[in-house]
Amino acid sequence: MGAIKNARHPFYNHCDEALDRIRHAGRYRTFTPLSRQAEHFPVYEEERQDISGTRDVVVWSTNDYLGMGVVPEVQEAAIEAVRMHGAGTGGTRNIAGTSPLHNQLEAELAALHGKEAGLLFISGYVSNQASLQTILTSMPGWICFSDQLNHASMIAGIKGARGSQTVIFAHNDLADLEAKLAAAPADAPKLIAFESVYSMDGDIADIAGICALARRYGALTYLDEVHAVGLYGAEGGGVSQRDGVADEVDIIEGTLAKGFGVHGGYITASATIVDFLRSTASGFIFTTSLPPCVVGAALASVRKVRAENWRREALFERVNAFRHKLRAAGVPFTMTPSHIVPIPVGDAERCKRISRRLLNEFGHYATPINYPTVPEGTERLRLTPGPFHTDEMMDDMVRALGILLREEGVIPALEAAGQAA
Amino acid sequence: MGAIKNARHPFYNHCDEALDRIRHAGRYRTFTPLSRQAEHFPVYEEERQDISGTRDVVVWSTNDYLGMGVVPEVQEAAIEAVRMHGAGTGGTRNIAGTSPLHNQLEAELAALHGKEAGLLFISGYVSNQASLQTILTSMPGWICFSDQLNHASMIAGIKGARGSQTVIFAHNDLADLEAKLAAAPADAPKLIAFESVYSMDGDIADIAGICALARRYGALTYLDEVHAVGLYGAEGGGVSQRDGVADEVDIIEGTLAKGFGVHGGYITASATIVDFLRSTASGFIFTTSLPPCVVGAALASVRKVRAENWRREALFERVNAFRHKLRAAGVPFTMTPSHIVPIPVGDAERCKRISRRLLNEFGHYATPINYPTVPEGTERLRLTPGPFHTDEMMDDMVRALGILLREEGVIPALEAAGQAA
Ligand SMILES: Cc1ncc(COP(=O)(O)O)c(C=O)c1O
Ligand SMILES: Cc1ncc(COP(=O)(O)O)c(C=O)c1O
Repeated sequence: MGAIKNARHPFYNHCDEALDRIRHAGRYRTFTPLSRQAEHFPVYEEERQDISGTRDVVVWSTNDYLGMGVVPEVQEAAIEAVRMHGAGTGGTRNIAGTSPLHNQLEAELAALHGKEAGLLFISGYVSNQASLQTILTSMPGWICFSDQLNHASMIAGIKGARGSQTVIFAHNDLADLEAKLAAAPADAPKLIAFESVYSMDGDIADIAGICALARRYGALTYLDEVHAVGLYGAEGGGVSQRDGVADEVDIIEGTLAKGFGVHGGYITASATIVDFLRSTASGFIFTTSLPPCVVGAALASVRKVRAENWRREALFERVNAFRHKLRAAGVPFTMTPSHIVPIPVGDAERCKRISRRLLNEFGHYATPINYPTVPEGTERLRLTPGPFHTDEMMDDMVRALGILLREEGVIPALEAAGQAA
Repeated sequence: MGAIKNARHPFYNHCDEALDRIRHAGRYRTFTPLSRQAEHFPVYEEERQDISGTRDVVVWSTNDYLGMGVVPEVQEAAIEAVRMHGAGTGGTRNIAGTSPLHNQLEAELAALHGKEAGLLFISGYVSNQASLQTILTSMPGWICFSDQLNHASMIAGIKGARGSQTVIFAHNDLADLEAKLAAAPADAPKLIAFESVYSMDGDIADIAGICALARRYGALTYLDEVHAVGLYGAEGGGVSQRDGVADEVDIIEGTLAKGFGVHGGYITASATIVDFLRSTASGFIFTTSLPPCVVGAALASVRKVRAENWRREALFERVNAFRHKLRAAGVPFTMTPSHIVPIPVGDAERCKRISRRLLNEFGHYATPINYPTVPEGTERLRLTPGPFHTDEMMDDMVRALGILLREEGVIPALEAAGQAA
C-alpha cells in the first residue's frame, strides 16, 4: 500500500531532505493530540501512547480567548442548524449554498463594525489572501504598504497580487510608514495593510495614526482585527471600535474562529467594495460555503458577544491576575498592552523541550512558538489566559514555569540568583 | 453608518465601474437564499420577499451528490462532536487545534485512497491552492502541465507558484500533453495537474493514460477527485479507485464538501510528501483547524460511504432515469460519462432568466452557470439528480424545462418543430 509504481520523482528526495533540514534546525513540529472537553474548558484530554489512554491537561494556548465555543447557547445553535439543515451546504454561495443564516451573519458582522456590508469567507486566512490579492490586482500600479510583522495570510494575498508593488514598513513605525508613503508616486493607488493586535508579540497598532497618514497620502486602509474581535470595544468590534475609529478604516477583516470561538472569516466594508469582492474574488466564489453548524453557531456567538460584556472584563481581570503571579514568582514575561502573555525562550529546541516537559511532568500545555511563526532567536511560549483559568490553575502553572525555566537555563537558578544579588 | 470619512480612494470608483460592466454583460450574480431542509432533501425552503415568507423548492444543483449531509448518523456525529468539544477548535493544527478526530480522519482518507498518509485542509479550494503552490516552489525549475479546464483552485496554486513555468494542455488531450512533455527539457522537475470528473462538462480523464505519460517523461501526478470521491470506485475512492490506478497517482486531492456532504478538503500521498506539505504549506499551517462538528461528521460520512454501496447505485439509477425522461420529452442535454447532466443554453441573460422562471413559476431550482465558471457562449444549467429525486419530481422538472426552453427559444416551439419535420 502506498508504494508508488513509477521511478521516484526528484520531489520525493527533496521532501526527505527538506524534512531533515527542518529536524536539524530543531523546527520539526509534532502536533499534540488534544481533545477539548466542552464541559471542562480550558481542560483538554490528551491522548497518550505511554499509558494507552488519556489524561487531563490545562491548555494555555487556545485562541478561543473568551471560551465562546463552549457556551451552551452557541453549541445549541450549532446543533439546531445541523438538525434542520444537515452537516454541510453542498454548494458554493452561488450554487445553492447561500442560506438565510449566511445572509444574517453577514449583516450582523457589518453592524458589529459599523459598515454597510459584510462578506463571509471559509477562514480568516482566506479572507485576507483572497481580498488582498483581488484588490491589489484590480487596477494597474497598486502599491501595498505592508507592516513588517503582518500575518502569513496577508502576505499570501499581497505576494499573490502579480503586477502590484510591495513596500514593507517597520513594525508599527508611523514615521517609517510616512516616509515611504511620501516617497511613492502621488498618483499610484495605495493600500496600507496592517493588524490591530499582533498575536505573537501582543502589541497594538495606532489605528488612528495610520488612518491619518492614509488620508494624507490617499491610501486605502485594510485592517486585520483577527486577534481583537470579540475582545476589544464595547461590543467586541475590535480595537478600531475601542478607539472610535472604525469608520476611518476602509476594510476591516476578522475571524469567527478566535474571540468568537467558532470558524470562518470575513471582511466588512462599503457595500460597493463588498459587492466587488463577492463578484470577483476567486477564493470567495469557487468553494463550498460555510456549513450550517458553523454559521448558526457563529451568529449566536456574535450576538452574545455584542450584548454581554462580562466575558471581556473577566478576560482582562484574569490576564492581570496571571501577570501578577508571574511577577511575584520571578518568571519573566513580555509586558504587552493586550491579552497576550509571551514568555521569551530564544531557542527552538529549548522552547520545544520546555513545552514538552510542561505537558509531561506538570499537565499544562503551552505551544512552543518557533520559526516560521516568529523570527529565529525569538522563540517563545505564548500564553493566553482566559475567563476560565482559575487561580489554582494559575498558581500551578506559574510554579511549573518557574521550575522549568530555571532547570532549562532560561533564567538563573534560585541559588545562583541569590549569590549574584 | 458606513460612510467613509476620507476622500474617496479611486478603488471605490473602480468597484462601481467593474460592477456596472458585470451587470451589462448579464453576469451579475444574486444569490438565491435557500434553506436546506434536512428531513425533506432535496427540498429546500426559499425565502421570498413577495410573499414575506417561505415556500418549498426542489433543488437540482446540489453537490451533496449522495445526500450524505442529511444522513442521520452523520448529523448525529456532528452533534456529538459539538456537545463534547464545542463549536470550534480555537487553534491552528500546531497550536492546540489537533484532536484525535483530526488524526483519525486523515488516516481514514489515506486508507480510502490506498495512500500512506492524508492531510486535512479547511477546504478543497485551499488543499489545491496550498499544495500546488508549495510543491511548485519547492525546487527551482518546476514545469507544471495543467489541463486547460482545471478548476480555479488549482489555477490559483499554479499561478501563485512564482518562478515555476506553466504549460497548458488541451483538455483531456493526451496527444497534446505528450507533445508538450516531450518538448520540455528532460531534466526539469515536471508535474501534471488534472481532474478526474470535470464538474461543468461532466467528462472524465483517462487517468491510466496520463499516468503512463507521467512515467515515460518522469512527471509527478496531481489528481483532483473533488467531484468523484464518494461516487466512483468500490468504496467511493474516486475514478482512480474505479480504474484501479490509485497507486499510480502521486497525489490525490479531494473534498469532504460534495460526495461526503460535509466540509473541508484533503490530499493523500506518500508519508514524505504529506509530512513535507504539513511542515511547509502556509495555507495549511497558519489557519484555525477544521471544527469538531465538521471533522466528526466527515469521519462518520467517509466510513459510511466506504461501507455502503446502495447510494452510489441509486445515484446512477436516478441519473439514467432522468436522462430517459429528458430524451422522451425532447429536452436536449449533453450526454456525459458521469453523473452530471448539463443543459446547454448559450447566453448569460437567457440562462439566468430560465433559472429564475424555473424557480418562480415551477418551484424548481437549477443554478445558471455563466462566465467566469464556464467560457462565454457555453452558458448552461447544470443538473445533479441524486438518490432522493423521485420520479414525480423528475416528471415535473422535465415538463417545466420543456416549456421554458421552448418559450425562451433555446429549442424550437412544438408547432414549429412539427412544421420543420
Ligand atoms: C493575524 C491573523 N490573521 C488571520 C489569521 C487566520 O485566521 P483563521 O484562523 O480564521 O484562518 C490568523 C490566525 O490564524 C492570524 O493570526
Ligand atoms: C474541481 C474542483 N476542485 C476543488 C473545488 C473546491 O472544493 P471545496 O468546495 O471543498 O473548496 C471545487 C469546487 O468547489 C471543484 O469543482
